[in-house]
Amino acid sequence: MAKLGFVGLGVMGGRVTRRLLGAGHTVTGYNRTKSKAQWLLDAGMRWGESPRAVAESADVVFSMVTNTAVLHEVFNGPDGILAGLGEGKIYVDMSTVSPAASRHLAAQVAAKGARMLDAPVSGTVVTLEQGNLSLMVGGDEATFERVKPILLDIGPKVNYVGANGQAVLMKIAINLNLQVQFVGFCEGLLLAIKGGVPVETALEVMLNSVIASPALKYRTPLILDMPEEVWFNVNMMQKDMLLAEELGRELDVALPSVALSNQFLTAARAMGLAQHDFAIVYKVLARMAGVDL
Amino acid sequence: MAKLGFVGLGVMGGRVTRRLLGAGHTVTGYNRTKSKAQWLLDAGMRWGESPRAVAESADVVFSMVTNTAVLHEVFNGPDGILAGLGEGKIYVDMSTVSPAASRHLAAQVAAKGARMLDAPVSGTVVTLEQGNLSLMVGGDEATFERVKPILLDIGPKVNYVGANGQAVLMKIAINLNLQVQFVGFCEGLLLAIKGGVPVETALEVMLNSVIASPALKYRTPLILDMPEEVWFNVNMMQKDMLLAEELGRELDVALPSVALSNQFLTAARAMGLAQHDFAIVYKVLARMAGVDL
Amino acid sequence: MAKLGFVGLGVMGGRVTRRLLGAGHTVTGYNRTKSKAQWLLDAGMRWGESPRAVAESADVVFSMVTNTAVLHEVFNGPDGILAGLGEGKIYVDMSTVSPAASRHLAAQVAAKGARMLDAPVSGTVVTLEQGNLSLMVGGDEATFERVKPILLDIGPKVNYVGANGQAVLMKIAINLNLQVQFVGFCEGLLLAIKGGVPVETALEVMLNSVIASPALKYRTPLILDMPEEVWFNVNMMQKDMLLAEELGRELDVALPSVALSNQFLTAARAMGLAQHDFAIVYKVLARMAGVDL
Amino acid sequence: MAKLGFVGLGVMGGRVTRRLLGAGHTVTGYNRTKSKAQWLLDAGMRWGESPRAVAESADVVFSMVTNTAVLHEVFNGPDGILAGLGEGKIYVDMSTVSPAASRHLAAQVAAKGARMLDAPVSGTVVTLEQGNLSLMVGGDEATFERVKPILLDIGPKVNYVGANGQAVLMKIAINLNLQVQFVGFCEGLLLAIKGGVPVETALEVMLNSVIASPALKYRTPLILDMPEEVWFNVNMMQKDMLLAEELGRELDVALPSVALSNQFLTAARAMGLAQHDFAIVYKVLARMAGVDL
Repeated sequence: MAKLGFVGLGVMGGRVTRRLLGAGHTVTGYNRTKSKAQWLLDAGMRWGESPRAVAESADVVFSMVTNTAVLHEVFNGPDGILAGLGEGKIYVDMSTVSPAASRHLAAQVAAKGARMLDAPVSGTVVTLEQGNLSLMVGGDEATFERVKPILLDIGPKVNYVGANGQAVLMKIAINLNLQVQFVGFCEGLLLAIKGGVPVETALEVMLNSVIASPALKYRTPLILDMPEEVWFNVNMMQKDMLLAEELGRELDVALPSVALSNQFLTAARAMGLAQHDFAIVYKVLARMAGVDL
Repeated sequence: MAKLGFVGLGVMGGRVTRRLLGAGHTVTGYNRTKSKAQWLLDAGMRWGESPRAVAESADVVFSMVTNTAVLHEVFNGPDGILAGLGEGKIYVDMSTVSPAASRHLAAQVAAKGARMLDAPVSGTVVTLEQGNLSLMVGGDEATFERVKPILLDIGPKVNYVGANGQAVLMKIAINLNLQVQFVGFCEGLLLAIKGGVPVETALEVMLNSVIASPALKYRTPLILDMPEEVWFNVNMMQKDMLLAEELGRELDVALPSVALSNQFLTAARAMGLAQHDFAIVYKVLARMAGVDL
Repeated sequence: MAKLGFVGLGVMGGRVTRRLLGAGHTVTGYNRTKSKAQWLLDAGMRWGESPRAVAESADVVFSMVTNTAVLHEVFNGPDGILAGLGEGKIYVDMSTVSPAASRHLAAQVAAKGARMLDAPVSGTVVTLEQGNLSLMVGGDEATFERVKPILLDIGPKVNYVGANGQAVLMKIAINLNLQVQFVGFCEGLLLAIKGGVPVETALEVMLNSVIASPALKYRTPLILDMPEEVWFNVNMMQKDMLLAEELGRELDVALPSVALSNQFLTAARAMGLAQHDFAIVYKVLARMAGVDL
Repeated sequence: MAKLGFVGLGVMGGRVTRRLLGAGHTVTGYNRTKSKAQWLLDAGMRWGESPRAVAESADVVFSMVTNTAVLHEVFNGPDGILAGLGEGKIYVDMSTVSPAASRHLAAQVAAKGARMLDAPVSGTVVTLEQGNLSLMVGGDEATFERVKPILLDIGPKVNYVGANGQAVLMKIAINLNLQVQFVGFCEGLLLAIKGGVPVETALEVMLNSVIASPALKYRTPLILDMPEEVWFNVNMMQKDMLLAEELGRELDVALPSVALSNQFLTAARAMGLAQHDFAIVYKVLARMAGVDL
């Protein structure tokens, strides 16, 4: 079993760490708010005093944080991950950031004799806990082969995609569809409801049809019962839409569906709903249809 | 086994009839072009000289045609289905037409002492042949219970939705998502391709992810290999989008994703691509991204 | 001075008739609700008992009604305009209907030895009363030259556009911009307001800028003060958007801005605002921005 | 006459400087490429060796540059404008940048005892040369009153809008309409053309109608005759759309028309048309309509 490090023990990162511990790995972890990591310390995780300390303690160090700004915080500076990396170490970032940002980190890591992979996940907390998470991996293929057994302890589907940055590119290409599909689903659902079909029946029929992606199966039932613990809120979804829009401009790809469906996230925020799961976008479309939930 | 009738033996209707014959039912069929029904006659189907003759010969008569205009042709007039219906008979229309049109037929059928159900399907020829088609059914619940065993010979999932017209309403609510999801998928795919990921890899990763609905799994591979036999072309997809837009106006539901994604079907036609499977919409978005396939 | 007829004495048609009377023409008029025409009878207009009677009495007969259905009502049948037309007469329809519908009427008129022109207007009641209305005319050029002096009594700008139907085509091409421009204006205005600029200042600055079309100058101030007498409500604006969308499908022209901006008219109706001037669309966008007026 | 400075002598800035010289002011100017300023030196402008030198020489110093990055270059650093400002001086920035960026500069200027105004213009080179440019001004009202006479030498309409940053906010709110209106106009024009109206006739009729804003009157004729000297290209228009989208997210205003119409600028770039006036967006919509120009 390998000596691992993990920086960022939030909703997803914490649960990934739990799986790695469960698989028998030694994991040293770090989180800005230590108290949130208590359950992992109870489960045998060691504590690292800083991202640098975590990187120094490990052969393979992971990070999984909310956005590029936080990633730069834990990566750079005297206490950052980069400062703790050296010859032969492997750094795996599981955050969703821009391909350009990811490639920039990879170059800095390479300059220290270490190797970096970008390994974002496709799936939710539920998928993860069921052991069904899929990972996409970008970077050097030999490095990928070395860490693949560890990645398989996280989830059963591990796809090598290509060079550094290409896994986060694929992640963004996938995630934009979460919002596009969700908005389309709401439009159909509202038609059904205003046409007289009970919302539960309409949901059931639609989720048994050919349009029911796993993402829709997971998220659209939240329309009826918004969760207390929010895993992916309006602002987080919009962050991914903005990454897509930035890429669209950089790569010259017109993204009309992305551009349009993104506006409903802004509208949700304007209506004071930013802290909910992004399924709350349903309320925006419902109000435009004169439907009260 | 029941005495059945079937009007409209096209791509879908013909294959449904084949399944009914295979299940041991006696089926009398009618199609505008008789030659296209030869394979069914060879398989034991009887020929009816008109939709009326088919209805007269059967306890339960089905129809499955392309649009409302054709439905009116086979339903009305001295040789139409309605003329052949009478006390105790059941008429099951599997076409996708507007809920209002369907309810109007149901009222005429009821006036003759018969009963009508709307029973559109969710799925493709492939799903049908694999025996996995799902049916939604609208109409009187007692009537539904009587024909349910026959419907189960068509596909294993048969959902009672509600009153007359509500099954076609659900069908439209589902089908609009085919186009919305497809356009979103193309946008993501084009980002991946222009970012350097080979199209085959990008497709594979996306189709293994949480956004991969059965519909996307079936249709997006057509991007790489457009089929010779076209089951659902640009104009057929647009017909369903227009049904959705009409319902949106009738029921006062704003449908921004539908309205936008529908425009790419028009653009496909303007580019001379109307006779292809609607997956050809990919070419419209690819041209807007400066990508040649 | 010519003997004129006028069918449809509503908000616009009544005022056009008033101008024709003012210019010294003899006008026989007809309106479904006679009481609404009393002010014109008081001003010297003669009453025709039916559209046919009006057509029989006149050398040049005009019509100006709300939509295609009403046009067919006053045009067809034993009491319709067509029945009153004959060799040498000229029929001028000022309604906004589809080019195909207009061409169909023109063919019927020609079959009776008469001639038809489509002559929709660009402008509002205010423009009309100020004597600044512009007219577009489609049809036979010689016929156009014969009635041009009469048309100049309605408004000072009279443009010959081309064959039958092409003037209503141009009218639709223009009118779709009313809604597209209005929605764009609202988006800018809401940015300004939420950025702290008082709404009156923002309106004034925008209406003094290069984007201020005459249509925006007239309509956007209604945002602050919705009128009691409504000249062009949500449903009327949507009727023109639908004519544009139909033409887009018929002529294979993708109309993304039309398709999108049209949805806000549906949303206005869903919010119970259909009977207001279509400037009420501002409320839909304001609600999506969390702004209360 | 005042001692003025001007940093940024490009297409617009150079012509503004020419007007100030023409009004009798002493102007010291600076431009990154000195050769482009030769015509102004010939007209009596003095040369400043750096933005700082310009600011030191003047009572009122102007800047007018392409984007925020260039503005920061000429504003900051030992040779920047800020270094040359001091007690009692006035700095007027005419660039289109984000309100936040403008307010940030204003605070730095105030810290040195000087005052800043944001004074973007609405109009084109043509409007400017005709002496019809309008200016919007944000900042301290007393400061505004002091420089107003000088601003009136640039253009006849000078509107005080509010605090620092509010004039650029209004500029952005206006400019987003340039693109939205243009796309809508193209859709109408393409309908007319495919319906058989000659493009010149359609343009003329539309530009004589109520939707013809000054901006459309200036730009849409470029569709027929793209200019050699490009004043506002695809990337410049998109820069303003992005400023609008950023503000939309910051202020929570959904901007569906902006988001959608912006995509056609990206498509123009993908088709290799970035260096043209943004009227080239017409080609994107024309290709989607199967029309070749």
